[in-house]
Amino acid sequence: MFCSRRLASHYAPRRLPPTIKELLGADTLHETSVSLQGWIKSIRKQKRVAFAVVSDGSSAKGVQAVFPNEFDLKSLSNGVSVRLTGHLVPSRGAGQAKELQVKTFDVLGECPQETYPIQKKDLTNEYLRENVHLRARTSATAAMLRLRDCLHRSIHNYFRTQSFVHIHAPILTANDAEGAGETFRIAPVAAHPDAQVAQTHTPTEFFGAPAHLTVSSQLHLEAFHAALSRVYTANPAFRAERSQTSRHLSEFWMVEAEWALQDGIAELCDVVEDLLRDAVSKAFTECVEDVEILHAADRPERLEALKMAVSADTPRWRRMSYTEAVETLQQCSDMGRSLSTEHEKYLAEEIVKGPIFVTGYPRDIKAFYMRVEDPSLPREKQTVSCFDLLVPHMGELVGGSVREERVHVLEESMRDAGLIQQSKEGPYAWYLALRKYGAMPHGGFGLGFERLVSWVGDIDSVKECIPVPRTVGRIDL
Amino acid sequence: MFCSRRLASHYAPRRLPPTIKELLGADTLHETSVSLQGWIKSIRKQKRVAFAVVSDGSSAKGVQAVFPNEFDLKSLSNGVSVRLTGHLVPSRGAGQAKELQVKTFDVLGECPQETYPIQKKDLTNEYLRENVHLRARTSATAAMLRLRDCLHRSIHNYFRTQSFVHIHAPILTANDAEGAGETFRIAPVAAHPDAQVAQTHTPTEFFGAPAHLTVSSQLHLEAFHAALSRVYTANPAFRAERSQTSRHLSEFWMVEAEWALQDGIAELCDVVEDLLRDAVSKAFTECVEDVEILHAADRPERLEALKMAVSADTPRWRRMSYTEAVETLQQCSDMGRSLSTEHEKYLAEEIVKGPIFVTGYPRDIKAFYMRVEDPSLPREKQTVSCFDLLVPHMGELVGGSVREERVHVLEESMRDAGLIQQSKEGPYAWYLALRKYGAMPHGGFGLGFERLVSWVGDIDSVKECIPVPRTVGRIDL
Repeated sequence: MFCSRRLASHYAPRRLPPTIKELLGADTLHETSVSLQGWIKSIRKQKRVAFAVVSDGSSAKGVQAVFPNEFDLKSLSNGVSVRLTGHLVPSRGAGQAKELQVKTFDVLGECPQETYPIQKKDLTNEYLRENVHLRARTSATAAMLRLRDCLHRSIHNYFRTQSFVHIHAPILTANDAEGAGETFRIAPVAAHPDAQVAQTHTPTEFFGAPAHLTVSSQLHLEAFHAALSRVYTANPAFRAERSQTSRHLSEFWMVEAEWALQDGIAELCDVVEDLLRDAVSKAFTECVEDVEILHAADRPERLEALKMAVSADTPRWRRMSYTEAVETLQQCSDMGRSLSTEHEKYLAEEIVKGPIFVTGYPRDIKAFYMRVEDPSLPREKQTVSCFDLLVPHMGELVGGSVREERVHVLEESMRDAGLIQQSKEGPYAWYLALRKYGAMPHGGFGLGFERLVSWVGDIDSVKECIPVPRTVGRIDL
Repeated sequence: MFCSRRLASHYAPRRLPPTIKELLGADTLHETSVSLQGWIKSIRKQKRVAFAVVSDGSSAKGVQAVFPNEFDLKSLSNGVSVRLTGHLVPSRGAGQAKELQVKTFDVLGECPQETYPIQKKDLTNEYLRENVHLRARTSATAAMLRLRDCLHRSIHNYFRTQSFVHIHAPILTANDAEGAGETFRIAPVAAHPDAQVAQTHTPTEFFGAPAHLTVSSQLHLEAFHAALSRVYTANPAFRAERSQTSRHLSEFWMVEAEWALQDGIAELCDVVEDLLRDAVSKAFTECVEDVEILHAADRPERLEALKMAVSADTPRWRRMSYTEAVETLQQCSDMGRSLSTEHEKYLAEEIVKGPIFVTGYPRDIKAFYMRVEDPSLPREKQTVSCFDLLVPHMGELVGGSVREERVHVLEESMRDAGLIQQSKEGPYAWYLALRKYGAMPHGGFGLGFERLVSWVGDIDSVKECIPVPRTVGRIDL
């Protein structure tokens, strides 16, 4: 017996209504009746007809909606949210393949023009930061957010293809950024500004010891590498830096990975390059309109350079030792033995004209966990097995290294950095223990996610590369 | 002319070596020579041969490695990391289809047995928390981490299929958890324990105003919904709760979504159910061995109940109004007019025997942003358009609501909650502005990610559902 009731009660997932992007992308929808929701981005009222661009944020281009003159359009203006039904038809105008012939519309939410902060006129970055809750209403911010989403997804997918396990490393940590002193610290409970709340707590550290916001997930990831071989995270990180630059935020996101290496620094650089080429290529296929909106029209060479960097016809990116990099730069300019941000940019922009890995920095200017290439050399000649990836107009985008797996060399570096005393006990004992119990040669890297967005989107400041920027002296929302 | 040099310099991505999971899964590898790396999980030395289980963490089962007796195996013991080469051949033993006939091996990292904390004997959860840096070396923790990875990926993929944009909502926030007082606060800079660091800073708030760790990304997501229509995040959240329960952490991860609704609470519940059914089904296909390791052997009914909950033959999950839920429970027990955690569990476990959405809670016990169903009723009879999803042995797994879009109703709720004064200015003015400028009917939900892991993996405490747990009185690593 055919039991329609039983069939009816079977589970079937709900499909949300098509977005404007889906409606405009589908081939079969010409002349069919559709319903959509969005915000009016602009409206042009003529005598017999009105044209509005309506966007739901699903793509860079909204849909052109054509209102016949029988409607009362007084309630329609920039920022108003509407539901429209009508027919999608081939557009007679330039700039779009289809347009919506509106049959009915409802105003879902009004938008008083006299106070609406997002006017059509050019709005400065600083003004938009002050209105960060509405910033995504602008084309540029919305494009940045879709680009971010695309890059984020591509990165997760890349790691999946290489059998990495995603790990949520902890945000609160007992370690204080390797002593750098630029961490945010959680306030002891007694410091709570609300007297009533403070009273109900004993005046002490909530965790029994000082807790900090993480500056990097690397050390924690190393612990999980030591069981899962290949691990990565895409985590927030925090630095209490007071300098205001276009490359720094107090709160930012980092993609970090650690894995068991079989081919040392070459493998590290290959994986970083593959990851970036894959992510940037995906941006050019999945959200090319957003990339084009973001790139400034007056410097098309940057878009070309970006395409070139990830083209399959372009060989692997240039790799150069630190020594060679310094010598190369010394031929062009008056400099000492270290690379400044300006030198780094010059190297990528002018000399290599593309991304470049600089490898093998002096031990004494790099972090304690990096593998010493030849510990038998005099200390001042020692280098570490590390790289910085420099890209044009940005400088450092990624940094990474083989990690020191030899306990005695690591202990020396940690003592030099003031992280352990003679006793080897203390907050980093667990990190040393990772080397003691079945350590494998391994390494990893950290990629500043906002810097990647900045590079791919040609966005001058990382403050415009994150949904809500956090910098010294300011906290909105 | 065929230019081999140009071809050679073309870019081709590097493929990392196959993992043990890949080697065991591939059909064609029988009798071929392979090389792999991993940790010895156990070793059994017999007279003429030794058997070791070697894992690289890529799957629940390691590979069985067979060492002929010509080798000196003194250096091999639990926890040692090795590189093995040999032939993968059909296994003669029970429990695995293939085994590795070892031809050569290298010890990569020794592991002194006398001090190695991860011994084969049963280790308590508390002991493993004390050794959290090595905890992932145990089968259960490694299985949990792979399950987490699988659920996390499935959730991102689900949102992608429904055209949601992923947003990194801010972690540091100016708002203090709707006045709940259980937020962590960033210490003013003067409180830095290092006197030298403190001196270089003016003794003030780094951000110019108190900064807190987010307790939920919802309000921020609502701002991005108001430009992109469908947004979600998978973000950390923080609560300074001093109670130690199996369902609470001070640092945890939440999946939260907000989108433009066309069908109110029904659409909300459908999407939550679809998301969960999809993620749990994926866990049964992509990491079923991990799920099985985690489920306790002595309560197989929980695994069955979980499979049943997500089976395509099972109709949509039960939905019940709050009033009906209370009446149903009153028939079985002596209770008042509110649902405790024990009531919630009883409802899911004993009455419905599966997940259940309870909808329409009284306005006065729910949050200010939830949409009032009928504001014309007397206040004590008013309900809000919300749901809690209750699952067996857990209670609340997801909570969500339609958001109040009517400015005057929202203002009343915010005044009642003490969030705004008469002036309507202050830290939540931006939230009210979202309603003023083109608001759409919208809603969303928050899903406690560790609770999902706990439910799917039948793990008693959420402390065992996160890489590094953070609870009152303790901070490791």
